[in-house]
Amino acid sequence: MEAVIFNGPFKIDVERRPKPTLLEPTDAIVKVTVAGICGSELHMYRGHQKTATGHIMGHEFVGYVEELGSSVTNFKVGQKVVCTFSPVCLSCFFCKNGYTNRCPAGTAPFGTQGLAGGQADYVRVPYAAGTLQPAPETVPEELLIMMSDIFPTGYYGAIRAIEYFVPTPSSELNGDSEQHTALSLKMQTLDKAIFVCLGCGPVGLCAILTARSKGVRTIYVVDSVDDRLEQAAKLGGIPLKLGRDDIPSIIKEATGGRGADAVIEVVGNTTAMRSAFDLLRPAGVLSSLGFHQGDLPFTALECYSKNLNINLGRAPVRTVYDEALEVVVANKDKLSEMITHRLPLSQAAHGYDIFEKQQARKVILIPGQ
Amino acid sequence: MEAVIFNGPFKIDVERRPKPTLLEPTDAIVKVTVAGICGSELHMYRGHQKTATGHIMGHEFVGYVEELGSSVTNFKVGQKVVCTFSPVCLSCFFCKNGYTNRCPAGTAPFGTQGLAGGQADYVRVPYAAGTLQPAPETVPEELLIMMSDIFPTGYYGAIRAIEYFVPTPSSELNGDSEQHTALSLKMQTLDKAIFVCLGCGPVGLCAILTARSKGVRTIYVVDSVDDRLEQAAKLGGIPLKLGRDDIPSIIKEATGGRGADAVIEVVGNTTAMRSAFDLLRPAGVLSSLGFHQGDLPFTALECYSKNLNINLGRAPVRTVYDEALEVVVANKDKLSEMITHRLPLSQAAHGYDIFEKQQARKVILIPGQ
Repeated sequence: MEAVIFNGPFKIDVERRPKPTLLEPTDAIVKVTVAGICGSELHMYRGHQKTATGHIMGHEFVGYVEELGSSVTNFKVGQKVVCTFSPVCLSCFFCKNGYTNRCPAGTAPFGTQGLAGGQADYVRVPYAAGTLQPAPETVPEELLIMMSDIFPTGYYGAIRAIEYFVPTPSSELNGDSEQHTALSLKMQTLDKAIFVCLGCGPVGLCAILTARSKGVRTIYVVDSVDDRLEQAAKLGGIPLKLGRDDIPSIIKEATGGRGADAVIEVVGNTTAMRSAFDLLRPAGVLSSLGFHQGDLPFTALECYSKNLNINLGRAPVRTVYDEALEVVVANKDKLSEMITHRLPLSQAAHGYDIFEKQQARKVILIPGQ
Repeated sequence: MEAVIFNGPFKIDVERRPKPTLLEPTDAIVKVTVAGICGSELHMYRGHQKTATGHIMGHEFVGYVEELGSSVTNFKVGQKVVCTFSPVCLSCFFCKNGYTNRCPAGTAPFGTQGLAGGQADYVRVPYAAGTLQPAPETVPEELLIMMSDIFPTGYYGAIRAIEYFVPTPSSELNGDSEQHTALSLKMQTLDKAIFVCLGCGPVGLCAILTARSKGVRTIYVVDSVDDRLEQAAKLGGIPLKLGRDDIPSIIKEATGGRGADAVIEVVGNTTAMRSAFDLLRPAGVLSSLGFHQGDLPFTALECYSKNLNINLGRAPVRTVYDEALEVVVANKDKLSEMITHRLPLSQAAHGYDIFEKQQARKVILIPGQ
C-alpha cells in the first residue's frame, strides 16, 4: 500500500509499505478514505520534537472497517468510522473515569514511532472497540475528519474555561440548550465574561466556535495570520493581530483594567503561555491546549498572587466525542471553510509544506488518488 | 491601648499605642476579645517575608463593635463580630462575583505595614459592612477565631479539589446534605477518590475535616510533627510521617501505582509543591493553599504530560464564610482540641515562640489580661 513516511525534518515521502494485518483480537484494520494533517504533527515536521524516522504519519483519519479482530463486537465490517488520535482501551482506571487522554494504551498516538499512522491506504487500529467511533453517513468527511482530534480538543479547551462561570441562561443560547455546571463557588456569569483565545489555527477555531455556541458573548482572538483571523471573526471572535494591535491595552480597556476572565491558549510555546498569564485577570482561568516543551514562564509567587486556575494537556477526545459532534453538526455551515486543501495522498509532501508555511488552513489527504 | 508589635524577625513586643479612631464612614472600631496567631504570620516572624517593622500584628480576631462609621448600616454597636483577614469592599468587580480574595481593598491584610492588625485592645476595620461577619453568640470564641482565616481557607482548599469529582451520594454523608457540583466531564466519584493533604498545621486540619465531612473517604495526611498527625488522624486522616514513612510508595500502593486523585498542599515551599506534583496521578487536581515565593518546581512539559489541574492562592473567605461556618458548627467537638494555648496579650512573644517551634497547635491571645 501507499503510506506517508517521516524521513526527518521537512522530509516527507510517500513510500510503499506492507498492508497491515490484525495482531491482536482487539485490533481492526481500517481502509482510510480521508486523512488529515494536524498542527501537532508540525512539531515533528519542523524538528522541534525529536524522533527517529521511518514511521507512517497521521493521527486523523476516517474510513471503513476492512477487518475486525475476534473480540471487537461493536463494529461491523464495512461500517464507516472515525478514529480518535490515540488508542483508548475502555477498561483501565483512566478510561472508566473519563480520562481517556491518559489511557496507558494511548501513550503512543497514531503517526509516531510507537504506532503506524493513518496517512496510508490502510491502518491497524488497536483497541478498536474504544478507539473507533461510528461515523454518521449524513455528516461529510470534511467535518468528520475534525472529530479525530481538533474539534474535540478545541471543544475541551473551551469547556474547561467555560466551567468556571455560571452558565448563560439557556433561553439566550442559539439552539443549543445543553448547559455545563459551574463550580460551586459563586462566580461570574458566562454571558458577561470576556474570553481570549491565543492562536487561531484549526484547534483554536474549534475552541472559538465552541465558546460562542455555549454562550460566550465576547471572545478576542489572537493570531499573526490574516486568513486565520478572518475565519475566527466569521465564527464570532474579535480579531487582534500580533504585531499590529496593542493586545494588552485592548484587553485591559475591555475589562476595566482587570484582564480577561478566561484565556484559551492553543499555541504551545513559552511566549504564548506568558502572554496568556499576563492577559488574564486575577482569579481567572487559563485553559492550555498547546503542547509545551519548555519551562513554565511564571513563578509560584506570581501564580499565588494571581489566584491562578490552570489546566494543561491533551484532551480526552473519546469522553467529549458525542457532545463535540453535536456542536459540529449544529454548525456545519460555519465549518465548511475550514478545509482549504484536498490533495491526493501522493502529494503529502506538498501538503505538509503549505500547511507549515500557513498557506493552508487545513489539508486533507485522499488515499487511492 | 496595648498592641502586639513586629520589631523584626523573632522580635515581638507588646507596646502602648493610641486607640484607633474612625477614618472613613465605612470604618468600624472593634473591641477585640480574642486574637489568633496565624501560621502565615510566621513567614514574617521568621524573616522569610521581608517587611518594615513597627506595625501591629494579627489578622484573626473576634470582638464587639465599639463604634461604627456613618455608612455602616448592617451592624450595631455592641454586636459580636468575626473579622475576615483582609478588607472586603463588596462593591468592586471581584467582590460582586465571589472573588473576595482579590478585592483591591484587601491588598494589605490586617497585621501588615498597610493595615494595623487585631492583636490589640482595639482595631480599626475598613469596609466594615463586608469585612465583618455577625458572630453567633452560641458558638464559642475558640471556634469563631478560626473563621477569620484558617477554617474558610482550609475549607476552600478542600472544596476546590472536591469539585473535580462526582459527589458522593448524599444519603451516605453524615448529616451534611449539601452537594457540590462536579465538572461536566465525566469523572471519578468522590467516594472512591484517594486524597492527600500535605501539611497538618491548623489550615491543613481544617481542610482535612472539610474533606471528610463532604464525602472524601480516604485522605492521607502528611507532616513531620507527631502531635499534628495525631490530630489529623482524629479528624479521619491516615497519618504519614515525613522521614519515617516511604510516602510515595504508600500512595502508589494505595492507588494501583497511579498516584493520588487529589492533593491539597498547605505547606508553602518548593519541596512540598514538588511532592504534591509527584504524588498526584495524571489528570488529578492539585489545590494549593501554601504561600509560595519561589519558582514552580515543575516544567511545562511535565504539566502537559500529566494533564495537570492546579489552583493557587489566597481563599475568598467572605464568599465561603457561611458554608464553612456550617461545617464548623456541625463539628464543634472535633475542633475543640485545635486551640491548645490561651495566653494574655502581654505574653504574645511567648505565643509566637512556641507556635514557631511547633510546641503549640494554635495560640490565641486575650486582650485586657
